[in-house]
Amino acid sequence: MQRFVISPQQKRAEQIQLTREQQHYLYRVLRLQRGDRAIALDGEGTAWIVQLQEDSAVIIELLNVQTELPISVTLIAALPKGNIFDEVVRSATELGVTTILPTLSDRALLKPSPQKLERWRRIAKEAAEQSERQIVPTLLDPVSFNDALHLTAETRDRYLCVARGNPQHLLASLQNFTSHSLVIAIGPEGGWTSLEVDRAIASGFQTVSLGKRVLRAATAPLAALSLIAAVLESYSNSQEY
Amino acid sequence: MQRFVISPQQKRAEQIQLTREQQHYLYRVLRLQRGDRAIALDGEGTAWIVQLQEDSAVIIELLNVQTELPISVTLIAALPKGNIFDEVVRSATELGVTTILPTLSDRALLKPSPQKLERWRRIAKEAAEQSERQIVPTLLDPVSFNDALHLTAETRDRYLCVARGNPQHLLASLQNFTSHSLVIAIGPEGGWTSLEVDRAIASGFQTVSLGKRVLRAATAPLAALSLIAAVLESYSNSQEY
Repeated sequence: MQRFVISPQQKRAEQIQLTREQQHYLYRVLRLQRGDRAIALDGEGTAWIVQLQEDSAVIIELLNVQTELPISVTLIAALPKGNIFDEVVRSATELGVTTILPTLSDRALLKPSPQKLERWRRIAKEAAEQSERQIVPTLLDPVSFNDALHLTAETRDRYLCVARGNPQHLLASLQNFTSHSLVIAIGPEGGWTSLEVDRAIASGFQTVSLGKRVLRAATAPLAALSLIAAVLESYSNSQEY
Repeated sequence: MQRFVISPQQKRAEQIQLTREQQHYLYRVLRLQRGDRAIALDGEGTAWIVQLQEDSAVIIELLNVQTELPISVTLIAALPKGNIFDEVVRSATELGVTTILPTLSDRALLKPSPQKLERWRRIAKEAAEQSERQIVPTLLDPVSFNDALHLTAETRDRYLCVARGNPQHLLASLQNFTSHSLVIAIGPEGGWTSLEVDRAIASGFQTVSLGKRVLRAATAPLAALSLIAAVLESYSNSQEY
């Protein structure tokens, strides 16, 4: 069944008022017709099966699906050059990320335009629909690396991926994981500067490795989030935990 | 240090004859100069530190690095539409794959042109250099799904990723892994057909899950290879194994 995300004010009792864009998407792009069913998501964890009317949709039933990770996962990602971040936002969303915090590192100082932020939020929304999530990840406004450290200071389990040196592998570090939220930080092309690594460690981060090969800035967040999601989901499914 | 891949016949004793393309790459693109050092790889696991002469390079020393996975990992990947496979080849190489076997599935019948295969092999070579690998992965000619099953029949540990149903998570399945090679098969957009899944199971494949969310054909191979590489490398580094 096709999926679309609504905002809270669109829902009144059992009726959802469709925006012009949603009508275009549902009737023109997806070629659905009046009377067809679809899934409406509020982007915060609730989903309904709805029946399409002309410019509204009637809620048929609450949907009981759960494709979200059991804990909150925040990705701190240094903004890379070019359009790589589109792909990072899309695949991080597919892999279950809760919050994305873009960061201006010493090696990646470019501040994105409001249009870019808008674009990334749209990509997150589309990817949440396509990967059948209940929650649309939050993409925060970019902050400095120092601010990213401060903003996540409350979280005990914070990991900084580094390309060099010989820290423990992220997968091994995740075996000791105990709390209800997790922060993973991925550097820009060329890696974090040693000053940034030192600051992160002083702030309570644990440095981890993603393996022996050098990953691109586009691949590293996926590799890290794949491991995090797998550990969280294969443990919660298994009887050994 | 900059890296480039040579073919066996370029090396005579301690001297490497540089091709015109390599000279262009080293001197024009990378802006290296006579007397500078670089790393030459034979694409099969050996690397040397060399000193550049005009149209040749002199071997200074054998390089003792090891960024390869401890076992052979074959990725069977259904060829997706569009240019997605460029990205699959690039990131699979970064994540340590040994062999890529493109497969024509019932949902992806397009046979790629020789130019495309050539392009993918070039991407694999570039990605091997950039991710600092010693081996350039082998990209085989595309085969039918049945042939892919036959070609890998000797390997005991073979996993077929499926998007639906509720099989064990790949990460959990990998805990029981024992042998010296591994095959992972990833379907096209829309997943394997049930006929393909049945055939793979009959041929000895184990079905596995990559988590609760639906991953795109571009993301699924990365997620699977991230888990495989992490299990192989975090175990081989840890004292518990």
